[in-house]
Amino acid sequence: MAKKSKAQKKSGGTGKARASAELKAVIDDLVIGNRVLYVQDVVDSYGHISARHPHYPERFLMSRARAPGLVVAADIMEFGLDGELIHEDERPVYSERFIHSEVYRARPDVNAVVHSHSPTVVPFSVTQVPLRPIRAPFFYPEVPVFDTRASAGWTNLLISNSALGRALAQTLGQNSVALMRGHGNVVVAPSVRVVVYRAIYTEANAKLLLQAKMLGGPITYLAPEEAALMEQQQSRHHPGHGSDRTWEMWKQEALARTGKVK
Amino acid sequence: MAKKSKAQKKSGGTGKARASAELKAVIDDLVIGNRVLYVQDVVDSYGHISARHPHYPERFLMSRARAPGLVVAADIMEFGLDGELIHEDERPVYSERFIHSEVYRARPDVNAVVHSHSPTVVPFSVTQVPLRPIRAPFFYPEVPVFDTRASAGWTNLLISNSALGRALAQTLGQNSVALMRGHGNVVVAPSVRVVVYRAIYTEANAKLLLQAKMLGGPITYLAPEEAALMEQQQSRHHPGHGSDRTWEMWKQEALARTGKVK
Amino acid sequence: MAKKSKAQKKSGGTGKARASAELKAVIDDLVIGNRVLYVQDVVDSYGHISARHPHYPERFLMSRARAPGLVVAADIMEFGLDGELIHEDERPVYSERFIHSEVYRARPDVNAVVHSHSPTVVPFSVTQVPLRPIRAPFFYPEVPVFDTRASAGWTNLLISNSALGRALAQTLGQNSVALMRGHGNVVVAPSVRVVVYRAIYTEANAKLLLQAKMLGGPITYLAPEEAALMEQQQSRHHPGHGSDRTWEMWKQEALARTGKVK
Amino acid sequence: MAKKSKAQKKSGGTGKARASAELKAVIDDLVIGNRVLYVQDVVDSYGHISARHPHYPERFLMSRARAPGLVVAADIMEFGLDGELIHEDERPVYSERFIHSEVYRARPDVNAVVHSHSPTVVPFSVTQVPLRPIRAPFFYPEVPVFDTRASAGWTNLLISNSALGRALAQTLGQNSVALMRGHGNVVVAPSVRVVVYRAIYTEANAKLLLQAKMLGGPITYLAPEEAALMEQQQSRHHPGHGSDRTWEMWKQEALARTGKVK
Repeated sequence: MAKKSKAQKKSGGTGKARASAELKAVIDDLVIGNRVLYVQDVVDSYGHISARHPHYPERFLMSRARAPGLVVAADIMEFGLDGELIHEDERPVYSERFIHSEVYRARPDVNAVVHSHSPTVVPFSVTQVPLRPIRAPFFYPEVPVFDTRASAGWTNLLISNSALGRALAQTLGQNSVALMRGHGNVVVAPSVRVVVYRAIYTEANAKLLLQAKMLGGPITYLAPEEAALMEQQQSRHHPGHGSDRTWEMWKQEALARTGKVK
Repeated sequence: MAKKSKAQKKSGGTGKARASAELKAVIDDLVIGNRVLYVQDVVDSYGHISARHPHYPERFLMSRARAPGLVVAADIMEFGLDGELIHEDERPVYSERFIHSEVYRARPDVNAVVHSHSPTVVPFSVTQVPLRPIRAPFFYPEVPVFDTRASAGWTNLLISNSALGRALAQTLGQNSVALMRGHGNVVVAPSVRVVVYRAIYTEANAKLLLQAKMLGGPITYLAPEEAALMEQQQSRHHPGHGSDRTWEMWKQEALARTGKVK
Repeated sequence: MAKKSKAQKKSGGTGKARASAELKAVIDDLVIGNRVLYVQDVVDSYGHISARHPHYPERFLMSRARAPGLVVAADIMEFGLDGELIHEDERPVYSERFIHSEVYRARPDVNAVVHSHSPTVVPFSVTQVPLRPIRAPFFYPEVPVFDTRASAGWTNLLISNSALGRALAQTLGQNSVALMRGHGNVVVAPSVRVVVYRAIYTEANAKLLLQAKMLGGPITYLAPEEAALMEQQQSRHHPGHGSDRTWEMWKQEALARTGKVK
Repeated sequence: MAKKSKAQKKSGGTGKARASAELKAVIDDLVIGNRVLYVQDVVDSYGHISARHPHYPERFLMSRARAPGLVVAADIMEFGLDGELIHEDERPVYSERFIHSEVYRARPDVNAVVHSHSPTVVPFSVTQVPLRPIRAPFFYPEVPVFDTRASAGWTNLLISNSALGRALAQTLGQNSVALMRGHGNVVVAPSVRVVVYRAIYTEANAKLLLQAKMLGGPITYLAPEEAALMEQQQSRHHPGHGSDRTWEMWKQEALARTGKVK
């Protein structure tokens, strides 16, 4: 278990983070996001979602080591960009928290990260078939594949230290999704709601592409020009549109299936 | 958001539409139809269903911009064939309402329209494999594929104006289903219950065809002569038969899964 | 709707059939069987299950025209082997009741019949790939395919008269399962519980075979000698074994999902 | 039904086994394990899970012949390594209890056994495609296929005596999973929680491999060196990690779906 770290001293915090309205909103979304990803079959008992701290950009928020379908607000902890806990806590933490810490370090535009073993995505990580967009504009520029074997030889495949996290973040580059060979994928976005949206539609697009491959013959992919226009439209955050519409539905379904969040 | 339009003046209505028994019945079906399409996995948080207004054929009824699984009677709004709201309303509307408006304009025989991203249908929209009928008689004459790229070059794929809606309606022609490349499909019918029936069996037939393709070898499709006899039989609306039987089941399942409609 | 028929006079019954314990047990199983087939995804809103009358072998019991997932005891009607109602009743009846009447006529060993559109079975009805047993011993001698087109030319595919029912029963022969091209299948057995069991494992075996085909290469099918030994063992009806074990589970699941049966 | 056996005399027990805390914990896990395997779609109404007796290594614990989704603590019985009941009991027992007895006899390191017809695993048992690991480290050294036909000629495929059980245990060897042609598979582990984990991820890996095969081209399997490091890491049993994390989730889901266990 990670101890109180230097990051804590830097930010001057010794007690619990002040539960500002903004922080509370991020934690609420994070808890709901955990449940949604479980109910929508993106994560099973493994996988995790984090959010950059709204007040301290050098910190991120993530549950203690627990199945996402069970996460409640009290499970959310603060981590520094070294992947270690900000506040002393005896509870177990995810071994792969370095996926998150290194992505936040490398990508200032990213405020939320999902790591999952999303079932239809994994097959693309072990074949030569690139995961290209049928409907998912955020697959551009590309969906690269990270292989621990290439960076670190024989490992247990877990991104359990900063060096592996850095290598993964480097493969991810400026993309929104990277596959992890024989393991899963990482999805990033500017907010919790958008990262949940992208993780769910990453799985959905993988299913569409698998089925299109099964039908055979040439496939018309989404063009980069079309993707750019879709992304532009979706980033405008109209109430009732984009991830605002999906969030209302997914939240209701998640709470109905998995119970209370506090 | 769309403002009070000319269509309103033309029809002379300034207050709310008189809630006649016939209108109430259509709205009830529309709300249940939204829920059914969600529970039967034809729509997710996106997609929509509309009905032509039973008193004003130049208007149609559709929910405000909201996930179909959550739609209640109070969400239903009236639109003109220009795709704009009849009555002033601040609530957000679906960007793709022009799919509906232009189909109602082009097809006087159509009283209900579904637009969905029905998951097994999309792969047929990006391959060269035509969606042909195993069991779905309403696939005749044919299931054409509409591509925004052919009509309008680079777009965000959304049918968000009348010109795109008209182009789609033209591709649909006198058919009951048209695919939209990399996006989804549109299904039309003489009533809400039949359009829900067709949307569900469009997805079901796509699954059958995909699996038949996976088995390999020649496929015996439904003949046009057989389809004509099936359609003739199904259009007779016997109680306990056709879409009357499915509606009772789907309605119960939808309400059990998604809760109250008012 | 079918009127009071000659079969009624022959059996001398003018009132309702005496609800003997044996009859009541068959009706109970029939109602549960309807629900089980729905919950196990063998039937959707269509398809039906019947049982031969325990006292009058020239009659059979089946629900009025209704989605199987909603059937209650009061829906069960009596039919003669001409497919017509024994007792006058205004409620609608299944158009395809002649599947049942003609099978009971041709096969004195059969006491229960299921007709379904079981989803993974239909693809085998429209390809040249025979539905052979991976695990289902009752697929022997064979699973023939019936095509209305071969017997009756252009039809609406429904088995809606005795002549079509006879032709289907002839194709079925002494087998337990026959496919119906582009439509569904018929499964027969000595009892309601066994026919439910066979209908469910017909779908399950179709899934196994489809997946084995997708893996590619030669397939080791269940040998006829093995199937004979399996059938012999399963026909012994030990409590806790065979269809007795499945019935307890399926019944609980069906009631939990679809509610009361009376 | 098996009568009081010699194993009972050897252990000196004539009454019920003393319900020590350790024994109670194993029985609790066994009951939950039954429910979890059902809810996670590894078993249907067939299949079974057992645990070696914590006090008498020559005995094992398993439910009476019953669908796993319905098993309660009172269903758990004690068996000897001859596959017979330790204590007299009139209730029916699983015919294939010899899978368990012979594996416990051959493998002192094994404390829990699952036999299932796990749906995506069966296709691998009837084709020439080996079930190789994408993510499942416990597939090493290999996943052999046992065929009753090779050992015993024409049978009903059931492992219903010690000789067949011994032949299966021999094929299993020092592996964790063996397939049974046209039938199912057996999974073994040092504990109930780990065997449930392995049974679930055996099915999951079979799905990944089937989909990778459908994508086509070469597949990068998990290397034996990677698998060894993963197994080493997972065997450390940290709270919140490995099968501890999955158990909490699966248990909650299983109880919510299948009701009380006592």
